[in-house]
Amino acid sequence: MDIEAYMRTLGQQARDASRQLAAASTETKNAALLAIASRLRDHKSALLKANAADLAQARSDGLEPAMVDRLTLTEPGIENMAAGLEQIAALPDPVGEITDVKRRPSGIQVGKMRVPLGVIGIIYEARPNVTADAAALCLKSGNAAILRGGKEALHCNQAIAACVRDGLLAAGLPATAVQVVDTTDRAAVGHLITLPEFVDVIVPRGGKGLIERISREARVPVIKHLDGNCHVYVHSAADPDKAMAIVENSKTQRYGTCNTAESLLVDRAVAAEMLPRLGAMLATRGVELRGCPDSLAILEAAGIDSAKLRPAEESDWSEEYLAPIIAVKVVDGLDAAIAHINRYSSGHTESIVSENYTAAMRFLREVDSASVMINASTRFADGFEYGLGAEIGISTDKIHARGPVGLDGLTSQKWIVFGNGEVRR
Amino acid sequence: MDIEAYMRTLGQQARDASRQLAAASTETKNAALLAIASRLRDHKSALLKANAADLAQARSDGLEPAMVDRLTLTEPGIENMAAGLEQIAALPDPVGEITDVKRRPSGIQVGKMRVPLGVIGIIYEARPNVTADAAALCLKSGNAAILRGGKEALHCNQAIAACVRDGLLAAGLPATAVQVVDTTDRAAVGHLITLPEFVDVIVPRGGKGLIERISREARVPVIKHLDGNCHVYVHSAADPDKAMAIVENSKTQRYGTCNTAESLLVDRAVAAEMLPRLGAMLATRGVELRGCPDSLAILEAAGIDSAKLRPAEESDWSEEYLAPIIAVKVVDGLDAAIAHINRYSSGHTESIVSENYTAAMRFLREVDSASVMINASTRFADGFEYGLGAEIGISTDKIHARGPVGLDGLTSQKWIVFGNGEVRR
Repeated sequence: MDIEAYMRTLGQQARDASRQLAAASTETKNAALLAIASRLRDHKSALLKANAADLAQARSDGLEPAMVDRLTLTEPGIENMAAGLEQIAALPDPVGEITDVKRRPSGIQVGKMRVPLGVIGIIYEARPNVTADAAALCLKSGNAAILRGGKEALHCNQAIAACVRDGLLAAGLPATAVQVVDTTDRAAVGHLITLPEFVDVIVPRGGKGLIERISREARVPVIKHLDGNCHVYVHSAADPDKAMAIVENSKTQRYGTCNTAESLLVDRAVAAEMLPRLGAMLATRGVELRGCPDSLAILEAAGIDSAKLRPAEESDWSEEYLAPIIAVKVVDGLDAAIAHINRYSSGHTESIVSENYTAAMRFLREVDSASVMINASTRFADGFEYGLGAEIGISTDKIHARGPVGLDGLTSQKWIVFGNGEVRR
Repeated sequence: MDIEAYMRTLGQQARDASRQLAAASTETKNAALLAIASRLRDHKSALLKANAADLAQARSDGLEPAMVDRLTLTEPGIENMAAGLEQIAALPDPVGEITDVKRRPSGIQVGKMRVPLGVIGIIYEARPNVTADAAALCLKSGNAAILRGGKEALHCNQAIAACVRDGLLAAGLPATAVQVVDTTDRAAVGHLITLPEFVDVIVPRGGKGLIERISREARVPVIKHLDGNCHVYVHSAADPDKAMAIVENSKTQRYGTCNTAESLLVDRAVAAEMLPRLGAMLATRGVELRGCPDSLAILEAAGIDSAKLRPAEESDWSEEYLAPIIAVKVVDGLDAAIAHINRYSSGHTESIVSENYTAAMRFLREVDSASVMINASTRFADGFEYGLGAEIGISTDKIHARGPVGLDGLTSQKWIVFGNGEVRR
């Protein structure tokens, strides 16, 4: 099999289908989403059987239990996929929205229209539900999709793809609107990310290694998420109760998510008061504190369990632990906190706890991250919490879309001009 | 000189300066712009002297007259640069704009804030005025800039850079907010476009060769302009007088601009009526018509000067002539016109001439170009005509910014959250 020719064929088919999708009515796109949902429910046993084949292979290949876990599809998991498609059908259609129309001195009226990007390539790892989710988001936003899942999930992805295809056809849309790459050859990814004539943007979802490789090699724009090294900064004018609640929730509600806090900054003016309380709360919940010398001195003097204390190394300031560990630093005021964050953060989400208006507003403006918060848990950085209704991922890039990316992030705005025969003088 | 170390130093300095610029007040940024403008006027003779040195070198190197022309700085040219800076100072500051704030069921209020991209690398060719223009747009939008002009303009760019530096310092901003690369070594460009830790976006301005090379090699997002193969489509329901005026203006007002029409599509239903009038008008103005067989037959039968007629080849449908030449094709209705444009266009600007509401609105939605117009000249696709007040270029990319890019295109939106101690349940 000539992989390059195969990928170019998929690309050309996607480009052709993207024209039909861009012109498709909201009604047609929603009909397709609902048809896919009902097919997923109807083919539950076929999906579970395909998944069982993948799982058997994974176990015989000796895959890690965490990987096998991500690969596993259950009956409630299939119901969730179907319900997710129905939720996306219920969202407003972003395509065709016209905004900012203004009359110019020349007589023309100039505005913007929201339009699909065209063809989106999604590259992901073992989770089979991504196949249905990503297909649905691309479809609703009027984009054709080329999906490349992990080889471990091939049978299950093919079974889901069959439901997607049948649903598209039932709604009168081309089956090529969503194509699943049907080979496990890794060269397929290399071609997919270097075909700007057929693919408008790549969205990689998976581990950091995958995303770094794709960013390095892509010749197509990439909407990506790298790290989540999120900070909570307890300012000198923090409300102590809000600080306790926000640090607790940001760090301990879930350890494995990208919007979990990994660094705690405490203002020197309140360190002696706040650090013992914060430290005791975190240690009690089993969180290890990796502190700067000043914070360690305070924590030790306060009698925090020494098994939970450790000196921070330079690398701790940049770390995404995804574990019950937090880096702790005493900082000399707002400027030092902002400078520390802008130097070490991954640009995902940061929160200040403060009752001081001017300090809070300066933090909001000067911290250069995708989400910047005042008196709220970093755990809110999420497409559903923000009201997007759906999320293809959380971008840590600075152009196009920052933070949680919903349907709007899969579109762009073109200029439109309403004229009446005007010419330029 | 170690070019890589030099470029990394510029990058680190720009990153540091970008923090100060992002936090700078509108007043400070405007003061810097006005200070630079007054220095450009005060140092007119030094600028002309530096330009004379570049011109002497260019002539002794045997540069093409067109290149020497672009390189030439005149007294009115300096006044234009200074006036341009004053106009940018008068524009609203895009940075800090807060929009779309909504209260969520959790209690948090979520919105967006417009923020600078950070550090912008501008790579351009001979025109020395780009140094002042680009510096001003980056400064006003709160971005640090690294400028790499053509080696032909080195002395003049250094003289302009000295004015920029003095103006920045006079306003209390770091001199490193705008840095001009001080070497003609081509390796500097290669480093500039592969330092994502220091540079957030590259804007290349110049010939297609330069832009293609940069797009291919960049490891940093690129906002670019490739071709301008713009179409005018005369629909079957076109008003003949509007069609004549729009085709004339789109093609003949200026031949060398990217928003000039290079292709004319005429609906078969009106080809026999419209093509002889359009052809006669174009031929009289000295425009060569490269036609499909059907259009040639009509034009020849109508007695259009045969010296101005030539059969179109496949390559003509994609050509950006930048010359008194236009490709002409008879098409079978709206669908065929849209399909032709979406296949051959460079995605810059297209206009339909039609009195039919449904046809015009379908064209507006389904044509996948940065600017899509109804009954208006393609020559309007321009930042000033659209009311942006300034323009760093016209993007033919699909993500981030499409079409004319003004100050907003040099910014992005981050998410902001106003909380009151909320945590996630």
